[in-house]
Amino acid sequence: MPHSRVGILNGRPRTIEIRELDVPELGPDGELVLRTVLCGICGSDLHRFNGSTPRETILGHEILARIELVPANWRAASGEALVVGDLVVPETRIPCHTCEYCRGVGSRPEKLLDYSHCPAQRGLGGIPLDEKPLLSGGWSDFVELPRGAIVHHIPASVPPEAAVLLEPFSVAMKAVRVAGLNSDDSVVILGPGPIGLLAVVAAREAGARHIVLAGSRGDEQRLQLGRELGAHATMDISAVDPVEALRAGNRGRLATRTIDATGHVAGFELGVQLLARGGVLVTVGGSALEQRASISPTDLVMRQIDIRGSQLGANQYEACISVLAAGRYPLEPLVSHRFGLTALQEAMLTFEARGTCIKPVIVFE
Amino acid sequence: MPHSRVGILNGRPRTIEIRELDVPELGPDGELVLRTVLCGICGSDLHRFNGSTPRETILGHEILARIELVPANWRAASGEALVVGDLVVPETRIPCHTCEYCRGVGSRPEKLLDYSHCPAQRGLGGIPLDEKPLLSGGWSDFVELPRGAIVHHIPASVPPEAAVLLEPFSVAMKAVRVAGLNSDDSVVILGPGPIGLLAVVAAREAGARHIVLAGSRGDEQRLQLGRELGAHATMDISAVDPVEALRAGNRGRLATRTIDATGHVAGFELGVQLLARGGVLVTVGGSALEQRASISPTDLVMRQIDIRGSQLGANQYEACISVLAAGRYPLEPLVSHRFGLTALQEAMLTFEARGTCIKPVIVFE
Amino acid sequence: MPHSRVGILNGRPRTIEIRELDVPELGPDGELVLRTVLCGICGSDLHRFNGSTPRETILGHEILARIELVPANWRAASGEALVVGDLVVPETRIPCHTCEYCRGVGSRPEKLLDYSHCPAQRGLGGIPLDEKPLLSGGWSDFVELPRGAIVHHIPASVPPEAAVLLEPFSVAMKAVRVAGLNSDDSVVILGPGPIGLLAVVAAREAGARHIVLAGSRGDEQRLQLGRELGAHATMDISAVDPVEALRAGNRGRLATRTIDATGHVAGFELGVQLLARGGVLVTVGGSALEQRASISPTDLVMRQIDIRGSQLGANQYEACISVLAAGRYPLEPLVSHRFGLTALQEAMLTFEARGTCIKPVIVFE
Amino acid sequence: MPHSRVGILNGRPRTIEIRELDVPELGPDGELVLRTVLCGICGSDLHRFNGSTPRETILGHEILARIELVPANWRAASGEALVVGDLVVPETRIPCHTCEYCRGVGSRPEKLLDYSHCPAQRGLGGIPLDEKPLLSGGWSDFVELPRGAIVHHIPASVPPEAAVLLEPFSVAMKAVRVAGLNSDDSVVILGPGPIGLLAVVAAREAGARHIVLAGSRGDEQRLQLGRELGAHATMDISAVDPVEALRAGNRGRLATRTIDATGHVAGFELGVQLLARGGVLVTVGGSALEQRASISPTDLVMRQIDIRGSQLGANQYEACISVLAAGRYPLEPLVSHRFGLTALQEAMLTFEARGTCIKPVIVFE
Repeated sequence: MPHSRVGILNGRPRTIEIRELDVPELGPDGELVLRTVLCGICGSDLHRFNGSTPRETILGHEILARIELVPANWRAASGEALVVGDLVVPETRIPCHTCEYCRGVGSRPEKLLDYSHCPAQRGLGGIPLDEKPLLSGGWSDFVELPRGAIVHHIPASVPPEAAVLLEPFSVAMKAVRVAGLNSDDSVVILGPGPIGLLAVVAAREAGARHIVLAGSRGDEQRLQLGRELGAHATMDISAVDPVEALRAGNRGRLATRTIDATGHVAGFELGVQLLARGGVLVTVGGSALEQRASISPTDLVMRQIDIRGSQLGANQYEACISVLAAGRYPLEPLVSHRFGLTALQEAMLTFEARGTCIKPVIVFE
Repeated sequence: MPHSRVGILNGRPRTIEIRELDVPELGPDGELVLRTVLCGICGSDLHRFNGSTPRETILGHEILARIELVPANWRAASGEALVVGDLVVPETRIPCHTCEYCRGVGSRPEKLLDYSHCPAQRGLGGIPLDEKPLLSGGWSDFVELPRGAIVHHIPASVPPEAAVLLEPFSVAMKAVRVAGLNSDDSVVILGPGPIGLLAVVAAREAGARHIVLAGSRGDEQRLQLGRELGAHATMDISAVDPVEALRAGNRGRLATRTIDATGHVAGFELGVQLLARGGVLVTVGGSALEQRASISPTDLVMRQIDIRGSQLGANQYEACISVLAAGRYPLEPLVSHRFGLTALQEAMLTFEARGTCIKPVIVFE
Repeated sequence: MPHSRVGILNGRPRTIEIRELDVPELGPDGELVLRTVLCGICGSDLHRFNGSTPRETILGHEILARIELVPANWRAASGEALVVGDLVVPETRIPCHTCEYCRGVGSRPEKLLDYSHCPAQRGLGGIPLDEKPLLSGGWSDFVELPRGAIVHHIPASVPPEAAVLLEPFSVAMKAVRVAGLNSDDSVVILGPGPIGLLAVVAAREAGARHIVLAGSRGDEQRLQLGRELGAHATMDISAVDPVEALRAGNRGRLATRTIDATGHVAGFELGVQLLARGGVLVTVGGSALEQRASISPTDLVMRQIDIRGSQLGANQYEACISVLAAGRYPLEPLVSHRFGLTALQEAMLTFEARGTCIKPVIVFE
Repeated sequence: MPHSRVGILNGRPRTIEIRELDVPELGPDGELVLRTVLCGICGSDLHRFNGSTPRETILGHEILARIELVPANWRAASGEALVVGDLVVPETRIPCHTCEYCRGVGSRPEKLLDYSHCPAQRGLGGIPLDEKPLLSGGWSDFVELPRGAIVHHIPASVPPEAAVLLEPFSVAMKAVRVAGLNSDDSVVILGPGPIGLLAVVAAREAGARHIVLAGSRGDEQRLQLGRELGAHATMDISAVDPVEALRAGNRGRLATRTIDATGHVAGFELGVQLLARGGVLVTVGGSALEQRASISPTDLVMRQIDIRGSQLGANQYEACISVLAAGRYPLEPLVSHRFGLTALQEAMLTFEARGTCIKPVIVFE
């Protein structure tokens, strides 16, 4: 009988329980079974760590893994065969594939809909232990993917530390695409965490003319990394007037696009403020749902501003893999800390303390 | 020497001064000269009426007029010749025609830019008396249009009471286009004033599946008019739960699009609340710039909502004229009150009192 | 043991064989089973009728039917429950729901992808008898729909003669949306067959300013029907110079959009010719694959013309049903001829002779 | 009295006449006067060289120049002041700035209109000597730009050999944008002349996943240059099966986008053939207007192919300047040959012979 060590969120706040699960059978309902290689820790994991859950759940949704078992009728997202031993990344959400949103009904030129609107979607690292499949999160030696999961091959040329960033990269890529960035644009990316840093890369790929990464006190290392990834400039908004600093490096102009990856209402509000007439703010959010930003509808009208919420990275993985495979960006330094599964509690506390910890990952075997 | 009676906003709040101007020469700098037929009164006029201005200005920007004088090199927006006696409507803003916004630089599929972003634009009814041209507002027997003004022919089949609505109709048409309405959409239009009522017509023309017009206590007559113009349903949000009422008439669903034409922050916030996942709110604003709405960025992310500010009706006039010319909508009742120029003060107070006054117009002879 | 009368295309050209099939079990593999009410005959059926097939196939893909059997886990496209006796129309193609095209990967503002690109799709009326399911075409008392089929409820208010047009209407609706029609547009629809006539309705719904339906000698009745459906003008291109006739009714201008629904290369070429600068032609094709049109690439460049191929009506059915349910268009006359299943051979010959036969349907009891 | 040496196309085919014009006054009607630095020779110049003209014309529209005289009310496209001595590039077409196309009426998400549709536009290098202004082409020591001309500043960091490519680069940039290229795309660029080579750069900037540059026998040097500019692969279609070669380097797939910059009907047809389902071909043309390509409308339908004609580079210059200023591409080798103005005849014959001549430029002083 196989075992899997797992990291479980349970009813006790601020506690990850490490448990060894007896698994009667791997993939009993035709699931694709993966053996985890690396699993990133995300801000949303931290958010849940600080709450509590009535139902025990194996967390972890930034999964890099190898194929362990392939039942019949499973193929990669590209349509290629999946072979035992293949290195893969699963998309973090599992859509129903049949609802109106999954079918793209209602998409139109100025707003594409994708599966991330699916009301029946489930998320890896978010399925309680009392539901199928049993091993549904990446904080586990093995992961079982139910039918409908979307799995991408990782080329051998991509370093594991880059491949494990694929999920947050897909989020950043989608945000940049929702912003419609091109070589006419000057963009301010607010928040130099993993999403913001990866948005620098996505903005670079989209050809943005001028990319500014904005952080705050204590973000020096992250901003430096942003410059190495291709930001034309960075700013510490605790030290400069952001409007002045932006204008000074941008021919006296405000930004045509801003991307709020701060997870703070103040970042969102600053993102609106930094926009030129006709500009667009994309937010990927992250603050608590009940936190409220203050905006002036008439200001939005007079400057004809768009504000667009973007979630997840549906349909972006293959494009992201191409970027990773081309190897043009020094992404490995984003993986700043590595922990074994049994050190998950320490990993969470290190991530929470922030400091030099950008993206911690759990390393298996 | 010609005279022109004019209605002037000056330093005294809540006062429109009627004056007879001696005009040494009409169109002295090559302006196109119009003889006013009708001029609508707009909520923005009321807003200015309640403030004060250090520089005297002839107000009025919803102008229906006949050509009085055509200097060389003036043509209609369509490229056709302008002939003395032609019935025309000028676009309310006069752009520079050369800046990046006027040239459409930076337009892209998901967001078109137009001349309404032009930083050098001037507006009819907003040019002080100490600037050229002298007669730059519609509360005047004659209007002088400077070079760059955009003038549209009105077909003889369009009743004057419909033609004088062209400017607010262009605002509503643009809002509907910015919303991207089509036959997949259910839309709630918030605010049954002239813009909201004309947005019902624009939504109808765009083929929207289900159109709800929302008003509040005292709006019974406006809502009734909305139904006559094509709204599938109306709601009085002071009497029903808007979410429940919307769902009840819309297959249990929220709206794919909302248009906020209330001029109130509460209307804007309700517009966000009534949206389904992936929905879009367009606001045409109208509240004071300093009034702030409260929104949750993370809610925008989780439901992937867009909020779009839309101003003016640039590039919409010809489409609107086609709709008016087809004569499918009973628009004349929107022009609820008629006043002579000398009764402007009374007109403003009547409009302010709201009641049955939807769109008052000044009648010239 | 149930029986089903079926109309089969086999190896003999120009012959529909009527056969009574013994069906051991309806829906043996969990198929949704329908009892056919009406089934339209399409030009593509006629095309196949004139060829031959090595594998016997039950034709018929324009199906209006009632639910006969609902296995577990089947729902309507809207997500609602399916109940025995419900009136439904299935989408004609059954996509895989998982490939890149089905997921919408690669969609972007100026070109949406949908399931109609799915390389693994199968089509009702196009699955040979030696494949599953057995009853896969509409020329049959019963139809078995395999998993993945998309089924739409028909409201009781829609007359059967309108409901049976849903499939060609979806094709016309998609063509009109691919053309991006709105109230700025003048459009020439070439070919007054069912698709062209339904494109008049779709263009009307999209708010097109000026709609011209073009036919040729013998199309008088179809053109008359087009005017009743909302075309502003019609032209017989065998009797007038199309460019002159278009300009005469369209302010001297060529069309901003043309839709080629002729199934003839000459119609396609005329569609290019009738376009103004910056115009767009959408073709829904229908001529033999090997027929070649002649175009000048440099003409496309100098006038910046787009040519867009549109196939099927993926994602359009719900919007079409809304239009049908609103009951604004006299669509029933399109169903010009009715035949029993046993008269299929006669139906094909009548359709081929054209004359007054616009859309023949097979009537089941 | 100033003189200007000019290169004139007159009634004698295949002859450029060098003449010294007496110019009574530079910029007599308020024109902006430039002193030419470099002027590129374009395929369209060669096309006209081989024809004849009844009206003498100074050719040359790829102009790099310094400001010589600035009348009042002239500003750069960016709105900045123009100062004598500034290095500038004028856009090659001078639009009317007021027609519907210039105003962007009729633009919509899936198809932007720009000034290149303006029916009243005039082109530098295309205004006969008997029209104003006198010095309207770049084959002249001085150039006079009429009101409405759009002039861009060139940063000091851009080498002149790159700056003189701005006009063809804008054409390539627009083609790439019309194609909607992003990181999901594999693109084949057909024709390794200046436009094709610059399209490699534009495709790179747009983040295309896989860029193939296709040429024919004799194009080895051009293809090598394409690889240096960022093409992932090149193919000589005279030596390989293009479909096979494309698939071999592109995961077995056809291209999602193709750009035809060959100026040959065969290139256009190959561009259609190399497309995957849902693909888009953009042609920038260049063959004689009367040359006809052969396409199957039904093939366009079945694969849902778009064909888009793109002309000129309206609204692309600032984005192109940003790319040039970033200095990431070795563009100088495109300027393969340099001639003095008096050697224009030799320049034309050298360009015609092709060989190693990619882009010849005329060097002044």
